[in-house]
Amino acid sequence: MIKAAVVGASGYIGGELVRLLAMHPEVEITAITSRKYAGKKVHKVHPNLRGLDLRFTDKYDFDADVIFLAVPHGTSMKIIDEFLGSAKIIDMSADFRVSKELYEKYYGPHEKPELIDKFVYGLPELHRKEIKKAELVANPGCNATAVILALYPFRDIAKEAIVDLKVSSSAGGRRENVASIHPERSHVVRVYKPFHHRHEAEVIQETGVKPMFTVHSVDLVRGLLATIYFPFDGTERDLLRRLLMYRNEPFIRLVTDKGGLQRYPDPKYVIGSNFVDIGFAYDAENSRAIILSAIDNLIKGGSGQAVQNMNIMFGLDETTGLSYYPVYPV
Amino acid sequence: MIKAAVVGASGYIGGELVRLLAMHPEVEITAITSRKYAGKKVHKVHPNLRGLDLRFTDKYDFDADVIFLAVPHGTSMKIIDEFLGSAKIIDMSADFRVSKELYEKYYGPHEKPELIDKFVYGLPELHRKEIKKAELVANPGCNATAVILALYPFRDIAKEAIVDLKVSSSAGGRRENVASIHPERSHVVRVYKPFHHRHEAEVIQETGVKPMFTVHSVDLVRGLLATIYFPFDGTERDLLRRLLMYRNEPFIRLVTDKGGLQRYPDPKYVIGSNFVDIGFAYDAENSRAIILSAIDNLIKGGSGQAVQNMNIMFGLDETTGLSYYPVYPV
Amino acid sequence: MIKAAVVGASGYIGGELVRLLAMHPEVEITAITSRKYAGKKVHKVHPNLRGLDLRFTDKYDFDADVIFLAVPHGTSMKIIDEFLGSAKIIDMSADFRVSKELYEKYYGPHEKPELIDKFVYGLPELHRKEIKKAELVANPGCNATAVILALYPFRDIAKEAIVDLKVSSSAGGRRENVASIHPERSHVVRVYKPFHHRHEAEVIQETGVKPMFTVHSVDLVRGLLATIYFPFDGTERDLLRRLLMYRNEPFIRLVTDKGGLQRYPDPKYVIGSNFVDIGFAYDAENSRAIILSAIDNLIKGGSGQAVQNMNIMFGLDETTGLSYYPVYPV
Amino acid sequence: MIKAAVVGASGYIGGELVRLLAMHPEVEITAITSRKYAGKKVHKVHPNLRGLDLRFTDKYDFDADVIFLAVPHGTSMKIIDEFLGSAKIIDMSADFRVSKELYEKYYGPHEKPELIDKFVYGLPELHRKEIKKAELVANPGCNATAVILALYPFRDIAKEAIVDLKVSSSAGGRRENVASIHPERSHVVRVYKPFHHRHEAEVIQETGVKPMFTVHSVDLVRGLLATIYFPFDGTERDLLRRLLMYRNEPFIRLVTDKGGLQRYPDPKYVIGSNFVDIGFAYDAENSRAIILSAIDNLIKGGSGQAVQNMNIMFGLDETTGLSYYPVYPV
Repeated sequence: MIKAAVVGASGYIGGELVRLLAMHPEVEITAITSRKYAGKKVHKVHPNLRGLDLRFTDKYDFDADVIFLAVPHGTSMKIIDEFLGSAKIIDMSADFRVSKELYEKYYGPHEKPELIDKFVYGLPELHRKEIKKAELVANPGCNATAVILALYPFRDIAKEAIVDLKVSSSAGGRRENVASIHPERSHVVRVYKPFHHRHEAEVIQETGVKPMFTVHSVDLVRGLLATIYFPFDGTERDLLRRLLMYRNEPFIRLVTDKGGLQRYPDPKYVIGSNFVDIGFAYDAENSRAIILSAIDNLIKGGSGQAVQNMNIMFGLDETTGLSYYPVYPV
Repeated sequence: MIKAAVVGASGYIGGELVRLLAMHPEVEITAITSRKYAGKKVHKVHPNLRGLDLRFTDKYDFDADVIFLAVPHGTSMKIIDEFLGSAKIIDMSADFRVSKELYEKYYGPHEKPELIDKFVYGLPELHRKEIKKAELVANPGCNATAVILALYPFRDIAKEAIVDLKVSSSAGGRRENVASIHPERSHVVRVYKPFHHRHEAEVIQETGVKPMFTVHSVDLVRGLLATIYFPFDGTERDLLRRLLMYRNEPFIRLVTDKGGLQRYPDPKYVIGSNFVDIGFAYDAENSRAIILSAIDNLIKGGSGQAVQNMNIMFGLDETTGLSYYPVYPV
Repeated sequence: MIKAAVVGASGYIGGELVRLLAMHPEVEITAITSRKYAGKKVHKVHPNLRGLDLRFTDKYDFDADVIFLAVPHGTSMKIIDEFLGSAKIIDMSADFRVSKELYEKYYGPHEKPELIDKFVYGLPELHRKEIKKAELVANPGCNATAVILALYPFRDIAKEAIVDLKVSSSAGGRRENVASIHPERSHVVRVYKPFHHRHEAEVIQETGVKPMFTVHSVDLVRGLLATIYFPFDGTERDLLRRLLMYRNEPFIRLVTDKGGLQRYPDPKYVIGSNFVDIGFAYDAENSRAIILSAIDNLIKGGSGQAVQNMNIMFGLDETTGLSYYPVYPV
Repeated sequence: MIKAAVVGASGYIGGELVRLLAMHPEVEITAITSRKYAGKKVHKVHPNLRGLDLRFTDKYDFDADVIFLAVPHGTSMKIIDEFLGSAKIIDMSADFRVSKELYEKYYGPHEKPELIDKFVYGLPELHRKEIKKAELVANPGCNATAVILALYPFRDIAKEAIVDLKVSSSAGGRRENVASIHPERSHVVRVYKPFHHRHEAEVIQETGVKPMFTVHSVDLVRGLLATIYFPFDGTERDLLRRLLMYRNEPFIRLVTDKGGLQRYPDPKYVIGSNFVDIGFAYDAENSRAIILSAIDNLIKGGSGQAVQNMNIMFGLDETTGLSYYPVYPV
């Protein structure tokens, strides 16, 4: 059994990670931490986990083979020294995902730049081999995961891409905030960052494509859809052929149906799973491609991907503890 | 033109009141107050009101014929001295709705008990005559409005009633609060007060019936439904006959259809209006009645009723500025 | 009083039109038609209208100064002969919005091509003068309204535009359809027509810009947002300056705030009103503009605009019976 | 491996059953049937199951150890002869849940009354031993499951109970129906059967308590909450003590917390799982109890319970293939 600890387990990503680890056949959770909830049972914070016998602690003296840092951006770099060397680390914040240059452009000053190069970018579909050997993995952002996987097969031809994202409220985390209360956040199509989003940094690093992100909050609790537009001089078959690079990926489903309702990816069809659904459309008249990419932002966009990375790092089958079909309808 | 001021105009009840007053043909808004937003345009807080040329002030030196206090419970009694005598007052808090005894049982100590008797309880369907002469009106609570109007015709026979309420998130106000953020508050059926709710006090006072309120938060932004159960030894026709006391009420719609989908009140059918839809069912086998009552909690359960009271107090037709059919579907 | 008849009043656009006309101070509704519901009271179909004393008829022998055709595409051209000459006509279907060539490209064969030129395209902001004199007006589509108003000020520089639309379920009409039932249609971000949508025809005709529409169904009952991308070599101020052509329009609100939550249009802020909220963003680094345009699809995208056209055609103030601030939050 | 066939696999209950069986470690699915979709891949109907290699068939010549009948009420009794004797049968319709007398009172004439007694009522918490030996199991209804488990511990004292149910749209099945389309079914609190619901028959049979069901459709895709009121002369501790009969049940979670948000069951906390959350409140002043019971209607209220029954019938650990924590937030 792999002994796992989750640092910062009171947020949505942390809670989802505890859920996945609790059901994972090769994992024993040895600690979940939270300053605010130290001493409380896990179900006081994550009511779905009632019956799971775990309490939050605020001590870092746990015994772990792998430590997940599910803390906010900027916090990982402050606390990581406590854990370095004691266990493999999977960091779910943005702190070690991109180069110092990109980090400082998109996020601000970095306090541990010397560590960045020691981290592997934890997108298994692109970096499986390096992850296998890694001690330190930086788990990708949710928007970045959806967009990188969609754009990667086209990185040689798409110089820039318009990325119109539709995201759910759980991506905003579990913070009190008037703009996030139910009366305000329900029934919106709210643009909160036209043209610029910090997850762009990861896309640039991984694909070389210059994305223009416009993020729209929509009335979903979970899930995200990326609609990606770029010029493409080819055929529909060319689009498909490039996407077929993913044909053996266990968590990528290509949506290539020609009839019926489900011809395009929809976050509704991936909720509760680690799948990425990728589909496409081609406009021959205007030489334009659209790639569509849908994920559950808390799973493939967070905790599921972290477990996938753990599986690889520990030599397990990559799908262990992750073979869940989505819950539908929900 | 009636000069109206709204004190505490940044909440949902306050915002809805400003909207209704801005469209009222006989009203001129002379001030809207907010400490937090003083100096800001109204649309920075209520984005639906973009185009309405009003700014919040934190001064109370306005010129008004009627002052609406749209402040939290406990605040009205603290600030009311500033306004007494200068204008008619419609208080939308709970501070002056019930007797000192009931207030102290349900809310706690009262700081201005000597004023309570000077207020008229502002439910026009029951107190139209007193409201007409009143200088001070206490506007009813949203749950209380729905329940009192439903129970009043049965007050002589229903000694106690089970009141199962389904309420929307706007009733909780515009406060930051983790339990209210969209991921937490969406898709709930959340009981937050089994058996006891402060609005019971008003029901007891107005009907003499002892209600047992159980409030369930459901996934609505607006609207509420009360499902009220009590023993009844009679016939369906008896139920209807008693409800017909409301037949000439401009804002009560009796739902008595025998076929189709819309045989029972539903908050969906009253959104954006000042209507109360009241319907019923009778279980002869068990001698049980159900009365159903649906309102828009921010309008008939708050601002609309306040405007209705104002109309009566100023001798206008009671429906002036309130003759809106509900928006449907929404 | 203007005598108005609504042909095809059982759908959402028809129901909303009846609601607006019932509250219009200068209108008397003389007939509402429906084959399916002939003889039934209006509230059996539109439960919000309980209390409005109207019944559906299936006869066309009504007395009307203006006839609204709220029937499906393809039906108006079949029935219009019954009404020609007897009254002014406002057609809410697509049948007479665009030239025969565009119609046949986007919709199929046209049965009354000789009538097309007699219709004025009923977008008041662009065709007020012609509407004033018109006997026959073709009311624009909902997506087209939002997109045309957003693109028109840029028609000389935007040759093509990527139009990413987020639309609500009421736009799909009131038809039974498995894909539309609540369990299937809730929580989707469903692409149903990448790159091609019939409302493009209107955009091409009115602006000359070639739009690439991708329509996403989102979890809204009402409202739509258009996010429109095009290359722009200028400054943010240039963008604003062009939009200021609308500064005196009664139903266009420019969203130009620099701080706060409401810096961009959101359908949530226009529900229940005839407003179009238009905003923008500029990406200087990439020379790209975004124009955002939000409407209530049943009002400015349908019935409200029809009433606005009627007001103009009958010499009334354009805002008569339409001066409603949006309902918020809802 | 247990060979399993699902007859009628295109509905929501059927789809959820296929999902659970596909992830079950001891099951091989040998057939899924549908007349309408014969020949189609499972994901054309259940898009969440993309990647699962199964096609619908309309033949009944499959090889199965257990056959699940996921067909509408009235259909099981018509087709069951085809399967009798060939395999164990778990019927998910209402056809064999209750005695002939109750069936005919609540549903109408029964075509196979002689078979009713051969079926065991498949509520494992009450009938585990009989299920273990059964060849034929009648899987309970969703509302009945929630209500029976809540009332059973009080069957000696509660002669009658008011049962106020809040149910989701997936309980209505996957049928086209104007009343179920998204614009109509969103944001409702719709009473569709005051006082009478067919699931009462099961409650009467299993508990002897006379329930008065009032079912309210609320804006949920999944989940249900039962709020059950009855007179109780005791103490809060008595209530708890009776519920403790379930303390060793693997799928019942007693919600007995005294602080925090999660003091009462909420369907939001059980989605995607086979759990029943049961909680309570006591009103000493009025000698009234409330029992609250929340389930995922498609899992513990349908497919999960069917799998639980299968596990028992085949001597597996009862939780095999069902140990999923709920997905939260969703």
